[in-house]
Amino acid sequence: MSKPLVGIIMGSDSDLPVMSAAAAICEEFEIEFELDIVSAHRTPEKLVEYSKSAEARGLKVIIAGAGGAAHLPGMVASETVLPVIGVPVKGSSLEGMDSLLSIVQMPGGVPVATVAINGAKNAGILAAQIIGSSDSTLREKIALYKQEMKAQVDAKSEKLKNIEYKRYLKEMGN
Amino acid sequence: MSKPLVGIIMGSDSDLPVMSAAAAICEEFEIEFELDIVSAHRTPEKLVEYSKSAEARGLKVIIAGAGGAAHLPGMVASETVLPVIGVPVKGSSLEGMDSLLSIVQMPGGVPVATVAINGAKNAGILAAQIIGSSDSTLREKIALYKQEMKAQVDAKSEKLKNIEYKRYLKEMGN
Amino acid sequence: MSKPLVGIIMGSDSDLPVMSAAAAICEEFEIEFELDIVSAHRTPEKLVEYSKSAEARGLKVIIAGAGGAAHLPGMVASETVLPVIGVPVKGSSLEGMDSLLSIVQMPGGVPVATVAINGAKNAGILAAQIIGSSDSTLREKIALYKQEMKAQVDAKSEKLKNIEYKRYLKEMGN
Amino acid sequence: MSKPLVGIIMGSDSDLPVMSAAAAICEEFEIEFELDIVSAHRTPEKLVEYSKSAEARGLKVIIAGAGGAAHLPGMVASETVLPVIGVPVKGSSLEGMDSLLSIVQMPGGVPVATVAINGAKNAGILAAQIIGSSDSTLREKIALYKQEMKAQVDAKSEKLKNIEYKRYLKEMGN
Amino acid sequence: MSKPLVGIIMGSDSDLPVMSAAAAICEEFEIEFELDIVSAHRTPEKLVEYSKSAEARGLKVIIAGAGGAAHLPGMVASETVLPVIGVPVKGSSLEGMDSLLSIVQMPGGVPVATVAINGAKNAGILAAQIIGSSDSTLREKIALYKQEMKAQVDAKSEKLKNIEYKRYLKEMGN
Amino acid sequence: MSKPLVGIIMGSDSDLPVMSAAAAICEEFEIEFELDIVSAHRTPEKLVEYSKSAEARGLKVIIAGAGGAAHLPGMVASETVLPVIGVPVKGSSLEGMDSLLSIVQMPGGVPVATVAINGAKNAGILAAQIIGSSDSTLREKIALYKQEMKAQVDAKSEKLKNIEYKRYLKEMGN
Amino acid sequence: MSKPLVGIIMGSDSDLPVMSAAAAICEEFEIEFELDIVSAHRTPEKLVEYSKSAEARGLKVIIAGAGGAAHLPGMVASETVLPVIGVPVKGSSLEGMDSLLSIVQMPGGVPVATVAINGAKNAGILAAQIIGSSDSTLREKIALYKQEMKAQVDAKSEKLKNIEYKRYLKEMGN
Amino acid sequence: MSKPLVGIIMGSDSDLPVMSAAAAICEEFEIEFELDIVSAHRTPEKLVEYSKSAEARGLKVIIAGAGGAAHLPGMVASETVLPVIGVPVKGSSLEGMDSLLSIVQMPGGVPVATVAINGAKNAGILAAQIIGSSDSTLREKIALYKQEMKAQVDAKSEKLKNIEYKRYLKEMGN
Repeated sequence: MSKPLVGIIMGSDSDLPVMSAAAAICEEFEIEFELDIVSAHRTPEKLVEYSKSAEARGLKVIIAGAGGAAHLPGMVASETVLPVIGVPVKGSSLEGMDSLLSIVQMPGGVPVATVAINGAKNAGILAAQIIGSSDSTLREKIALYKQEMKAQVDAKSEKLKNIEYKRYLKEMGN
Repeated sequence: MSKPLVGIIMGSDSDLPVMSAAAAICEEFEIEFELDIVSAHRTPEKLVEYSKSAEARGLKVIIAGAGGAAHLPGMVASETVLPVIGVPVKGSSLEGMDSLLSIVQMPGGVPVATVAINGAKNAGILAAQIIGSSDSTLREKIALYKQEMKAQVDAKSEKLKNIEYKRYLKEMGN
Repeated sequence: MSKPLVGIIMGSDSDLPVMSAAAAICEEFEIEFELDIVSAHRTPEKLVEYSKSAEARGLKVIIAGAGGAAHLPGMVASETVLPVIGVPVKGSSLEGMDSLLSIVQMPGGVPVATVAINGAKNAGILAAQIIGSSDSTLREKIALYKQEMKAQVDAKSEKLKNIEYKRYLKEMGN
Repeated sequence: MSKPLVGIIMGSDSDLPVMSAAAAICEEFEIEFELDIVSAHRTPEKLVEYSKSAEARGLKVIIAGAGGAAHLPGMVASETVLPVIGVPVKGSSLEGMDSLLSIVQMPGGVPVATVAINGAKNAGILAAQIIGSSDSTLREKIALYKQEMKAQVDAKSEKLKNIEYKRYLKEMGN
Repeated sequence: MSKPLVGIIMGSDSDLPVMSAAAAICEEFEIEFELDIVSAHRTPEKLVEYSKSAEARGLKVIIAGAGGAAHLPGMVASETVLPVIGVPVKGSSLEGMDSLLSIVQMPGGVPVATVAINGAKNAGILAAQIIGSSDSTLREKIALYKQEMKAQVDAKSEKLKNIEYKRYLKEMGN
Repeated sequence: MSKPLVGIIMGSDSDLPVMSAAAAICEEFEIEFELDIVSAHRTPEKLVEYSKSAEARGLKVIIAGAGGAAHLPGMVASETVLPVIGVPVKGSSLEGMDSLLSIVQMPGGVPVATVAINGAKNAGILAAQIIGSSDSTLREKIALYKQEMKAQVDAKSEKLKNIEYKRYLKEMGN
Repeated sequence: MSKPLVGIIMGSDSDLPVMSAAAAICEEFEIEFELDIVSAHRTPEKLVEYSKSAEARGLKVIIAGAGGAAHLPGMVASETVLPVIGVPVKGSSLEGMDSLLSIVQMPGGVPVATVAINGAKNAGILAAQIIGSSDSTLREKIALYKQEMKAQVDAKSEKLKNIEYKRYLKEMGN
Repeated sequence: MSKPLVGIIMGSDSDLPVMSAAAAICEEFEIEFELDIVSAHRTPEKLVEYSKSAEARGLKVIIAGAGGAAHLPGMVASETVLPVIGVPVKGSSLEGMDSLLSIVQMPGGVPVATVAINGAKNAGILAAQIIGSSDSTLREKIALYKQEMKAQVDAKSEKLKNIEYKRYLKEMGN
């Protein structure tokens, strides 16, 4: 196994059901990744060590997910020159608005590349695009991925044209 | 000059016009304080040092103000056992909602005592109340302060009863 | 039993499932506490008596939780010089935003130390930090508590490194 | 001068520019009123006295305006059987949403009749309607007031039909 | 049966589970009421007839509940001199914020006395207070009602003091 | 079968349970329609082709539904001179506010006729009204539809008058 | 002058500076229009007359703008079979969110085609598109309008390529 | 001049005062960039051409800024495999919340790396980090930039320690 290019971290293992989608995308694109739990508030020293060593360890991108007052992505960004992707995780109140604003509204000088609430899958794709910006083989994989998405929509479109929409609904379980 | 009991920090000197109200309250209650600029995102090491040394340096409370994705209060709270008061500073968009949620929605284990948007004056009073909870002289000062607030309202109430409300408005400049 | 140092009150017994977390923290830190139901709107006289007598009865901090137009924390704060911690309790609409704003947006002169929506556990910890600001034994307990939180995250981190993340998810019940 | 039927109170004289519109409506409908500053947080005892004595003093309705964590209307409502009208006053952040939710989201048992943000004029009209519900002369005045509103709209409508809309805009100062 | 004093209307029978709480309060206070479905958008003519005839039919207050773009309370208010109480009913999206704003933000001249989201019980109490403002017997009933609310809170407070809070929680089903 | 007049498209087949209500309305008004899946982000070329050919293919109105950052309606509108109706579909967070704002806040020059969150039924009716604006037979059908809605409300109103409201509730399953 | 096809109404002449943009578009597309002030709350009878007679008077579309609890578009829609376009007008608080929700969140059966906050220009264009859906000459004008918009963007794009962006900014007055 | 690596586009030249900060950062980091106006809604064909040709033209990252229903970043992302950074531009209502949600809430498969409202400066830095993830010289520049930010904060911190805070405020112009 070669060294990981993408570090996927989250504030708590309760974020894993959401964040695992980023790992699945890395597997799909055959990008080496590492997965860890790093809490901005409970393990701040580990956060600093993780972030500061990331570049030297060969990481190219860091994906960080957190909920509520989600400080993890921004604090990682303050300690590394690597691009950091933030995933706002929806908590038990406020519909994810708190984590979205805590991640995206970073001050001048320290950006976090924010994706949608619970958008860990897109965080994985964005990581692939970032690495792909200097890797044409990976860009081709992404292009293929886009074609597959298109093909899936086309197939559903075909199906919807061929059967009555009420039957389509029934087959969906409605 | 004795050692400061209250540390007042802010993410940027652009927060000073808001945060100075906390300093003014400390002066009014004759509580020694220190004032500094500590940026969670631009000076993360200083944040750690400041927070870790706070207890040993004799601080009893830390007041931290920040805007946008306001990580300063929460990150300080992760590094100290002292109570941390957070002041959401209103920025140029979202009416301060972003900083409020970034400060108040802390995860279990690491509280930040959040006050109103731009509520630095109340942060100062809360710091006094916290120190006062083991200092009866200070509690008396706070009680006096409350009486003075009452007296001011009573005086305005008297005035409003004695002159026509339209004249009161005119004297206010309306 | 010594006299309680922390008063934990709530507007209705329907808030008890949330607010009991503050009591549990007091038990964990071995801080004497009292628990009561005090409604700002249904028992306003009791609210006044409770708040006015709190200092003399030896309380050092009051934790008040309420939902909706949550007036309890702010009204208690208006009647005592003690620090008051407010817990916004999420109700059946608006995702807790109403109680958060009703508690945190206090006017100048009367702060409430607001924690996260349903953040009663953090209210307990903040109470411990406030009492701890003049009690080094308690501060040590809090430091220990922080170490235990760190250890828990570290253990989960270890586990995640040692088993496949898909298995970790499965063991979580996903 | 006969005894006032409507009590108009506000948390601070800074609310007077907004709240004076309620007084102006009382004058227009020739309803006796009183105007006072009563702060839920700075003069809680006065709030209790004011509210408890209101019925005996002959008041029929109380109008209470406040901003931020606007507790005044709700706390008055907890101390009187009279109907209480709440006016959310827009503050320097959050566009008045905080005061609106703090006033309207009252718990079961203690309603506040809430009007629009800064809607003191409508609070005055609602007070007139409440008194009018057992006073046919006042109801006739309100009916007349509605006719006058209609006439004003009709006049503007006439004008807009008779001149080019661009000239109408110019006469408005646009 | 004497003539109804309170008209309770709603935009759809799907609002009845919420709005029936207003009827229950009228029954509790022995105030005659009528209950009807009047849709601002589906039966606009009935809305006009209902509102215009309300005063002559002897109604003293109208309670109107609606969800979404809740126009019913405001349109009734435009057609009557009686006080109109609006109940925002929570729908399937936006947590009731849409109906709250559609009801409370009425323009100058046409107030709606707005209560909390799904606050039909309070609408009933407010109607009683409005009628009570010229009916001392009813005011006494409301005072009694307030005493009963207080007694209920006191009883729960007693219970919480006498048993362990964990047992109290268990008895609540937690 | 004649050529379709209404094109109903959606970003994903997961929107079909919501969007099928628009198709059902077309069936009810006997307006020919077509139903397809067109994703702004996954099949952008198909979006362009669909939109550009719509007018020539005889469509009179396009209904487009999408959730989240709902770009479909706006992008269709940028490519056709036909009126486009947008249906914000509620997703798994933010209560549909994201799709509502993404659809309705279009820049000057390119309107989207936005209906309520999940309001596909109304999108169908609006499409009928648009076609009806030059088709008096269809306008008569819409008038009839409005009468039927009125009749349904009237029937429920009758029922509510004739049975006790508690029984009505019970029959509703409450 | 031929009979107007588009009725443009607003709740108050204070909405005219916003709503006049709809009139300007009608002039640009040479569509006859009428402009009037019709208040849902101050002139409800006129609203009914206006809406009921609209179809017979030859109108094809109605554009209605209003702020706050903006009931005008929805109430017009309840009284006509014509398509109604709603323009949420931004008021002095809540950034237009109140009028947006009051207009767009219409119940099933009575749609309002909602455009952006203050989007009267787009309301005019949407009206043209609606009339255009059965008028190919008008559709051609709209196509031309779109080409002109494109040409304007292209011209600005050209300019930005040819001069330094700092000079472009300076010429804009920055 | 070598070929541009960063494409900076915006929906309208009215976005240039905000978006020029991204260009300034590129200049500071000596990264070649191009600047253009591409409107998703007014020049959709150009958007497609621009996005499809971006990779072949040698661009590594695209920065797209837009306000309101901000479709530009998402539509570009749908047409390219390059990473796309979205800048929500604050418009005249809703405080930028509409553009933020329209940009960040992208569906699975098509991410946009979203930065803060009006955060074009951070978009520039993020572009540098993305290019830097495979360019160690650029990473060093970014590290230097971070040191300079730190130095600026340190200098302000020094100044604040050396002069009275009231004088610091006065020198800021307060």
